[in-house]
Amino acid sequence: MKHRQSLHTLFVVLLLAPALRADEGMWLFNQPPRERLEKDHGFRLAPEWLLHLQQSSVRFSSGGSGSFVSADGLVLTNHHVGAGAIQKLGDATHDYYRDGFAAATREQELRCHDLELNVLVSIEDVTARVQAAVKPDMPAKEAAAARRAALAAIEKESLAATGLRSDVVTLHQGGAYHLYRAKRYTDVRLVFAPEHAIAFFGGDADNFEFPRYNLDICFFRAYENGQPARVPHHLTWGRQPVSAGDLVFVSGHPGHTDRAKTVAEVVAMRDRQVPFDLQVIHRLESLYDAFCEEGPEERRQAIGSLFSVQNGRKARSGILAALLDPDLMARKRAAETTDRGPIEAGLDSRPSPYVRIAHAQAELDRIAVRHRMLEGAAGFNSKFFATARTILRAVAERAKPDGQRLREYRDSNRGPLELQLFSEEPLYDGFEVAKLADSLTALATTLGADDPLVQSVLAGRPPRERAAALVAGTALGRRHQPEGAQAPPPDRRRELYDGGAAAVAASPDTMLALARLVDEESRRLRGLAEAAQEVKQQAHAEITRARFARAGETLYPDATFTLRLAYGVVRGIEGSGPEDCPAITTYAGLFARARGKGDAFPFVLPPRWQEQRQALEADAAFMNTPFNFASTADIIGGNSGSPVVNRAGELVGLIFDGNIHSLRLDLSYDDRLSRAVSVDAAGILAALRKVYAADALVAEIEAAP
Amino acid sequence: MKHRQSLHTLFVVLLLAPALRADEGMWLFNQPPRERLEKDHGFRLAPEWLLHLQQSSVRFSSGGSGSFVSADGLVLTNHHVGAGAIQKLGDATHDYYRDGFAAATREQELRCHDLELNVLVSIEDVTARVQAAVKPDMPAKEAAAARRAALAAIEKESLAATGLRSDVVTLHQGGAYHLYRAKRYTDVRLVFAPEHAIAFFGGDADNFEFPRYNLDICFFRAYENGQPARVPHHLTWGRQPVSAGDLVFVSGHPGHTDRAKTVAEVVAMRDRQVPFDLQVIHRLESLYDAFCEEGPEERRQAIGSLFSVQNGRKARSGILAALLDPDLMARKRAAETTDRGPIEAGLDSRPSPYVRIAHAQAELDRIAVRHRMLEGAAGFNSKFFATARTILRAVAERAKPDGQRLREYRDSNRGPLELQLFSEEPLYDGFEVAKLADSLTALATTLGADDPLVQSVLAGRPPRERAAALVAGTALGRRHQPEGAQAPPPDRRRELYDGGAAAVAASPDTMLALARLVDEESRRLRGLAEAAQEVKQQAHAEITRARFARAGETLYPDATFTLRLAYGVVRGIEGSGPEDCPAITTYAGLFARARGKGDAFPFVLPPRWQEQRQALEADAAFMNTPFNFASTADIIGGNSGSPVVNRAGELVGLIFDGNIHSLRLDLSYDDRLSRAVSVDAAGILAALRKVYAADALVAEIEAAP
Repeated sequence: MKHRQSLHTLFVVLLLAPALRADEGMWLFNQPPRERLEKDHGFRLAPEWLLHLQQSSVRFSSGGSGSFVSADGLVLTNHHVGAGAIQKLGDATHDYYRDGFAAATREQELRCHDLELNVLVSIEDVTARVQAAVKPDMPAKEAAAARRAALAAIEKESLAATGLRSDVVTLHQGGAYHLYRAKRYTDVRLVFAPEHAIAFFGGDADNFEFPRYNLDICFFRAYENGQPARVPHHLTWGRQPVSAGDLVFVSGHPGHTDRAKTVAEVVAMRDRQVPFDLQVIHRLESLYDAFCEEGPEERRQAIGSLFSVQNGRKARSGILAALLDPDLMARKRAAETTDRGPIEAGLDSRPSPYVRIAHAQAELDRIAVRHRMLEGAAGFNSKFFATARTILRAVAERAKPDGQRLREYRDSNRGPLELQLFSEEPLYDGFEVAKLADSLTALATTLGADDPLVQSVLAGRPPRERAAALVAGTALGRRHQPEGAQAPPPDRRRELYDGGAAAVAASPDTMLALARLVDEESRRLRGLAEAAQEVKQQAHAEITRARFARAGETLYPDATFTLRLAYGVVRGIEGSGPEDCPAITTYAGLFARARGKGDAFPFVLPPRWQEQRQALEADAAFMNTPFNFASTADIIGGNSGSPVVNRAGELVGLIFDGNIHSLRLDLSYDDRLSRAVSVDAAGILAALRKVYAADALVAEIEAAP
Repeated sequence: MKHRQSLHTLFVVLLLAPALRADEGMWLFNQPPRERLEKDHGFRLAPEWLLHLQQSSVRFSSGGSGSFVSADGLVLTNHHVGAGAIQKLGDATHDYYRDGFAAATREQELRCHDLELNVLVSIEDVTARVQAAVKPDMPAKEAAAARRAALAAIEKESLAATGLRSDVVTLHQGGAYHLYRAKRYTDVRLVFAPEHAIAFFGGDADNFEFPRYNLDICFFRAYENGQPARVPHHLTWGRQPVSAGDLVFVSGHPGHTDRAKTVAEVVAMRDRQVPFDLQVIHRLESLYDAFCEEGPEERRQAIGSLFSVQNGRKARSGILAALLDPDLMARKRAAETTDRGPIEAGLDSRPSPYVRIAHAQAELDRIAVRHRMLEGAAGFNSKFFATARTILRAVAERAKPDGQRLREYRDSNRGPLELQLFSEEPLYDGFEVAKLADSLTALATTLGADDPLVQSVLAGRPPRERAAALVAGTALGRRHQPEGAQAPPPDRRRELYDGGAAAVAASPDTMLALARLVDEESRRLRGLAEAAQEVKQQAHAEITRARFARAGETLYPDATFTLRLAYGVVRGIEGSGPEDCPAITTYAGLFARARGKGDAFPFVLPPRWQEQRQALEADAAFMNTPFNFASTADIIGGNSGSPVVNRAGELVGLIFDGNIHSLRLDLSYDDRLSRAVSVDAAGILAALRKVYAADALVAEIEAAP
């Protein structure tokens, strides 16, 4: 009976719902929701409060968020955000990813191979300048080129003037362009990481679920000139843990959402893009899982890739489930009908932006798989290939004027590009061959074994044989040297990159030859895709202008991996359904969950926790410490590692996940069942103190500001 | 240098190769390769030797082979062949699949829920009668119906006359029809199974590899009238273990090969069928793997399904690798050109059988995905659905004359059909919902969410919600009742099946309603597929006649899950390549392998082996006992569990796998690197004696015949 009642109530609420739901929004820091915060939560957003939060927030170039938590550049983020960097620091005798790491002194902190942190310094609206570069009568290809040139010029000027990383970001699908300036930190060192088994307790099974019990944290430190960076802003640890009902704020970098997509675009996601993504993901999951089973060392090499695709599988499956929910699709259609009427009424004879988007989408769909396999390099899943392509293109693009280059080779991006290109990450031949053989097979089955380009790529050999030859013949990376093995061939990345076109043309490198072989067709496909995207951007800009004219401040753009402010309240799921759960879990819950699952993988506590289990379970204060909590904040992938702060701007948590219902936030916000999931700041301190005895770290965190 | 030499040698060998390679062939028991055996191996095939082997051989209806090894109906097969039956016997407190099982007395032997064993009694060539039923001028649909009617009539007559299971088998893709008569055993009990960890030591990593160390065995017993069956033939255990170079014979049931396919059919496999199979497999692997991680009980329920799809993934990947080998494809094309010339020269104005096959294949490709999702039920992955469809159709088909029914509902198949339909296998709601939600999602993404039939199937709900409602609303199976849970709804299978059309029409069962909803479209697709298959059969019959006229005895048909005789020599891979390996492994190798892999999953020995490890490793005789061996016999999936016998007809091994190169045997035989892999009979006895102390079992096996 209660279930029926709540459905009825829900129906009424939906009918009366305002345009924005409570606590919806991934807000720009230069357009924060002041009025809504004041009206809904009685909170006055002070400029200095916001600036402090902004400059305490950190973006991980590898995809993720974090925050400064000491004046000496100490950075807190999720274990799973740091995972790639941590894994790359390991070798056959050190598995920091699995076993954790703790630097007893600053000298012991481990420098990461290719991690870059950014701190947002300023935002400038450059929409007018960008739009002015594109004339109304330009064909799409020409318009895309003009827009690219304008972006490059703005960024280059800014970098020269300020020395700051300068990125023009496309917002509202092309409705606005903002210049983001950020300070870069490229000397980043690992300070502390717990064991993977507690960071990711419950594994794939509990991923995207709540209640939850994960110590998904790690600490890095930003360095400048070989010294810990003295940072002007950092968050102080909250003095009180959160309680249910508390207002909290999230400052982080949501990566991507699809909320402003038109129905035609959403249908393409549902029927083509997401199913294809999942095909790729399932194949890779199988590949990495099988590789991990080959043995402990293979497992160490591939386990991070496995967890990453498993996470992607659950995320994409959640989005697909939302796309296949007829109610959600009906709401999308209804909203579009409402928007579309007034826009199309004022068009005179110009084609509707909705129709232009649908046509451009059809063109993108037509080339999608080929584009993904070639330009997206899904057919060449090897770090060696990625490096080869970067060198090939960097050398070719460098010869062109800045504004005419492919976006990633613009002068303003040179620093970040080179940091990645020359990473000292060790590469493993066996793993590279396995990945490349699998992806060459996929290339042949998706484009057809009789496709002439596929035949050139395979060079008359079966995929595995060809992959082995390609890996054996390349010298573009730092190879792992197994004990007792011959020294690997010398790394020729720098020599070729610096040597320019002549050196590249003369190189016998197999992977460079492969990159060259597919480059013309890859670039052609990219050109087609960029022209179609340009059509979409112009059309979306038109739609956005109309929506802004109607809605004013209540519009925030889709996520773009730029800094955003979200907020919500600490809340479980109340009601009478099977989904009900409290807002906050404790360490007592962790041990109960492990026991309930027979202490079997993925619910096995790491050795350190096992050894201290009895003492910890006897410690009532520890057992009752909040561990993870749920809130209604509007987040998505990329927000991982985001600081969660209270009204006072103090750190009270660390976003690390959303529940399974939150996956539909990609398409629209919904606070009925969707929850953001955080590690509690009090829980972090308790674990550092009682389980890890990380006294220096605790002292640094607790130092008076 | 040696590598180059051997390539050259190989080339010469290929040029001079006869039509059949040494030891090639999956021979019919009524057309054995007498001359080749005598010529190549000096072995005279005596009729009584062959009859003894035939009647000692056992077919597992679940897919696999075995043999009688005592006069009291004791059957030896692989653990992985018995796996389904063993898993179904378990419950939340008994995991025989993982932990093994040993009946101390015959009273303790556990009756399987739905296992059927068949022993081949006779083979009769009925080609003329079947072909006579089909007139040359009949349209394909009519011809298919006439052929179906002829098959049904032959089988019905035979069953009535002999009481034996009677199946007319299509051989040579339609070139011949043989009536197979078999004795059925439907009371089959589990006698002994080792732990999964030793049966499948090395797991997915070592699957399809050699050297190998697997005790992939289990024992069942056939019962008649509640008593152990007294069987007229059984194999005696070999007195000497095999040595490298020995001639061995394999008597078993290879399931399916594609060697006689035309190039058009092989290209369809390469570009469409196998890639699509792999998409499905990867998705299911991910589903089952994730389900297993939910907890120990979930793992028990789904682990068999996981291993099964992992096995399928490796098998299909191996076939795809062969299909993408340009050399193999070139040989196929060359062989077809040779065959095709003389056939097409004699056609006058009739269309070429190769062209007719290509057209029929194009039609099959056109409907393939829809056929697979609906008629193949890939969109409805639930045992409840399979039961619902069987009941719905059985009731409808029963009203028709026998010869007009869908093949599986013919009178001659009633016994096997009912054994499956009324299986007491326990079903788990959570697992059924997970499978059904996943497959309904696949239905929507492959056929399109806007497809009217998909919309009817989903009934306006998201796939998971719809799946939960479908499972909750069906009563077609024996449900597992978790401890403390409410009694599940009564099982209505018998009531509906016996109640006929009226009972089925009146039933509110959700799964029955779903089966009804898709039945018309499913049947329509099946009709189209059967008509295309009929065109192919007629064309293949023409090609086969021409090939027989040329080749005589050297032709054996593609595998069809009927009894076949293969032979070869015990042989490793000699040469100088990375593939080299000895022919025979020992228990010493097992322990070395476990140690080399850090005794970590999937290389963990089961507890019983761990506990006795020290004593076993100190026992030189045990350590040197042959454990697994490789041979050149021509086998494929379905041969699992096949007895391997020596010249004396004594059991010397048990096929359980082929190496990775053997996967291409689906397309053509090749003895350069392909090997069949067996458990050594001596190794089995040693384990039963020393590790399991299974004295009664050993005594029964060793009893004088």
